Amino acid sequence: MIGHHPDRDQIKLENVLTALGNPMRLAVVRVLAGGGEHPCGTVLSKEISKSTLTHHWRVLRDAGVIWQRPSGRAHLLSLRREDLDERFPGLLDAVLHGVRTDPDSIDQYAP
Amino acid sequence: MIGHHPDRDQIKLENVLTALGNPMRLAVVRVLAGGGEHPCGTVLSKEISKSTLTHHWRVLRDAGVIWQRPSGRAHLLSLRREDLDERFPGLLDAVLHGVRTDPDSIDQYAP
Repeated sequence: MIGHHPDRDQIKLENVLTALGNPMRLAVVRVLAGGGEHPCGTVLSKEISKSTLTHHWRVLRDAGVIWQRPSGRAHLLSLRREDLDERFPGLLDAVLHGVRTDPDSIDQYAP
Repeated sequence: MIGHHPDRDQIKLENVLTALGNPMRLAVVRVLAGGGEHPCGTVLSKEISKSTLTHHWRVLRDAGVIWQRPSGRAHLLSLRREDLDERFPGLLDAVLHGVRTDPDSIDQYAP
């Protein structure tokens, strides 16, 4: 794994909410919610700079929302769905439902 | 009403998540979730400065999480529960469940 990943019981509600409170990061979570691991270069628009991506991966990872692991020259990202569902039942489902019904500010960041 | 309150259909998911992504504001929402209007001086610890409170009321209000209306020399606060439940079904319930199961960082701000 890359960087710090909190253990499940160290995941804090306020950190998860802050991490999700950004349209670019919601766009990431929407892609990862489909399941599996995704190369970091494929989950957001190609227009977004590498430094911006790196910042957002760190916020999501530090909050406990995603796993990030190296794979060759790329990183693979996946959603910590099981951990989040166990810690905060219903939260991720409610957020993903909100993303589906109000995608306007998120779609601009789609790959 | 005081200041800007977005209409229900203008409430944005990312703004609600950001507003809730703070232990002091989660402490406010926990109190208001009991229902009714609460004088602004009664929902958080007396230790918190007026300027800090004013900042947090604005973040919650601008995001569409609370109503804030004047009453004499005070303001009355209430949760926009119906609007939030309509816009983002299950979100507030999941957050309040998380607050109940992991109150550590929130209790310090209780009145």
